[in-house]
Amino acid sequence: MQTKKQDRIADNSPKLMNTYRNFPMVPRVVFGNGSFNQLGEILLPKRKHFDAPVIFLIDDVFEGKELVGRVPLLFNDKIIFISADEEPKTQQVDALVEKIKFDFRELPSGIVGIGGGTVLDLAKAVSILLTNEGSSEKYQGWDLVNKPAIYHVGIPTISGTGAEVSRTAVLLGPDKKLGINSDYTTFDQVVLDPELCIGVDKKQWFYTGMDCFIHCVESLSGTYLNAFSQSYGEKALELCKEVYLEDLSDNESREKLMMASWHGGMSIAYSQVGVAHALSYGLSYLLGVKHGIGNCLVFQYLKEFYPEGVALFNKMKEKHNIELPSGICSNLSDNDFDTMISVALSLEPLWENAIGIDWKCVITPEKLRVIYQKI
Amino acid sequence: MQTKKQDRIADNSPKLMNTYRNFPMVPRVVFGNGSFNQLGEILLPKRKHFDAPVIFLIDDVFEGKELVGRVPLLFNDKIIFISADEEPKTQQVDALVEKIKFDFRELPSGIVGIGGGTVLDLAKAVSILLTNEGSSEKYQGWDLVNKPAIYHVGIPTISGTGAEVSRTAVLLGPDKKLGINSDYTTFDQVVLDPELCIGVDKKQWFYTGMDCFIHCVESLSGTYLNAFSQSYGEKALELCKEVYLEDLSDNESREKLMMASWHGGMSIAYSQVGVAHALSYGLSYLLGVKHGIGNCLVFQYLKEFYPEGVALFNKMKEKHNIELPSGICSNLSDNDFDTMISVALSLEPLWENAIGIDWKCVITPEKLRVIYQKI
Repeated sequence: MQTKKQDRIADNSPKLMNTYRNFPMVPRVVFGNGSFNQLGEILLPKRKHFDAPVIFLIDDVFEGKELVGRVPLLFNDKIIFISADEEPKTQQVDALVEKIKFDFRELPSGIVGIGGGTVLDLAKAVSILLTNEGSSEKYQGWDLVNKPAIYHVGIPTISGTGAEVSRTAVLLGPDKKLGINSDYTTFDQVVLDPELCIGVDKKQWFYTGMDCFIHCVESLSGTYLNAFSQSYGEKALELCKEVYLEDLSDNESREKLMMASWHGGMSIAYSQVGVAHALSYGLSYLLGVKHGIGNCLVFQYLKEFYPEGVALFNKMKEKHNIELPSGICSNLSDNDFDTMISVALSLEPLWENAIGIDWKCVITPEKLRVIYQKI
Repeated sequence: MQTKKQDRIADNSPKLMNTYRNFPMVPRVVFGNGSFNQLGEILLPKRKHFDAPVIFLIDDVFEGKELVGRVPLLFNDKIIFISADEEPKTQQVDALVEKIKFDFRELPSGIVGIGGGTVLDLAKAVSILLTNEGSSEKYQGWDLVNKPAIYHVGIPTISGTGAEVSRTAVLLGPDKKLGINSDYTTFDQVVLDPELCIGVDKKQWFYTGMDCFIHCVESLSGTYLNAFSQSYGEKALELCKEVYLEDLSDNESREKLMMASWHGGMSIAYSQVGVAHALSYGLSYLLGVKHGIGNCLVFQYLKEFYPEGVALFNKMKEKHNIELPSGICSNLSDNDFDTMISVALSLEPLWENAIGIDWKCVITPEKLRVIYQKI
């Protein structure tokens, strides 16, 4: 039985079922308050020459802020500010790639993403599309990228998505929300500077942290789990509990949440998310609801699937006086519901992880509709 | 104060005191029972050509065993069996490098270490010395390696040393026991197959697991610690407690100990070992006592420094009916004691981590002699 399960849990992609993923880890990481100051030194040996710039994609909340002055610009490097108001889109990736190719004679020496999940996923996708032909939607899926990406660096400024360590770049495409899952997606370098998270909006802090919490709950109770992912997931969950239920100092809280996000992202190596992420993808796809809040909106109604997790979630929500918006789905048409349900149901590995191989006997469109209607 | 401490704890090498180490992680890892079977496929794209073999350094306990038949030999690949009865030595590295250079016209495509800490550290050192001139003792220290190593793969067959994930290769040299600490030391690929640990001798299993446990106790109570290393160290310690104090199935126990070793090794990124390792290095240097048992021999007498850790250690020892040898130091000369004490005291970062900047006020040769005399 153990072996049977081990076989199935080996991988979270539909492709490799009887082998274990040879997981790409971020090969370089620096951690510490103020470690952002080392970025210039880190980039120096990666600079090819004068004409090959480093492109910094930066969350536009930092426009005009002190952080921008600390970006180690050299030669013809360029900063592009990115709005994180919406989920990252395939067209956005394609437009950025086109612009970079138009503006510079040479391919960049590197792409640096400074921001939350949106900016980090864009940075990963842009670095891939600079060396791989065609539109980014072509690469949404598993292991469709053929050529190594441009050297890319991830610098999170909010914690929880795990985007800094994962091998996916989740994009909204014309007909699906799906990640570019590939070994070339993973960042070549990550800078974990907890001080960059000072000043994050409280609601954002909660929603994004809950992204980590929820995905740990989903992966730890999933059928795909193995000991590798379990150990990372357990540590991430424990850190989330410390951050959201205990009374830590601001500094300790920032440091621990950054590590929670890191371990949570690592736990995905041999695990998979579940019901909340599947339903949240539907919400994002139809309504552009952002991933973090989308997960929260869905998760509160998933007591049937994750009783303990939902109880803890409610405790955290209460402790931090977070009120989730309601009535999001109240004016939707039948057609709208069908769209969300069909996006959610298309994420088969998530359902199989959450419920097991026979998930189709348990999960029906009607059941999902009832949940969406509550939101 | 926080910032002050952060500055000091930034790095465990004497070189970089005001920056944080940009830590090299193993860029590829595969985990799972039977994952050893993927080795052939993993090596294939790394093979340069017919004349550039893969050299497999394998613990000689596997000589004639089934595992050897599963090694994916191709072309003129070679297996070299290594005795792990003694600590790895600089002369041994130099002799292996000379032999490989003599036997083959071309540099190898890769070095694969299959074994415990001794074999893994030899594999790391050999892969470095194949591309860096001179004797291996020249590189004992911090960041003395200039050229990238040959592609090297680590496959642990016993858990606890953390050698599979660390950036050091600890060697006994003519006048010191010290690691080759460098960014090029880290393996390019690790295969974590818990099934390879089936059949490990029970005492070895205990001593090597205690290496992980002890180093977590040392790093978690050390002054160098930061949140990154703390989170890894805590998880490793928790897994050790599960393995050695709870009643897990054999499979679960193997899987969890392998992950304990992994996380324990990662926790060293921004932390340092302490009193037990310093004293144990002295024992190894003078008497060739192996690292795992050496740590145990010392640790039992360190209640003054690690009261909780020593209490847990005694509980684990009892549960598994382990009796440590005694009288090891009973016939040593004054000169011998002085040698051990001087090796131990030379490891300044370990003492600074354990006791603080003013460690020299607390730790005297006499104090160390008293501990050694008990062993």
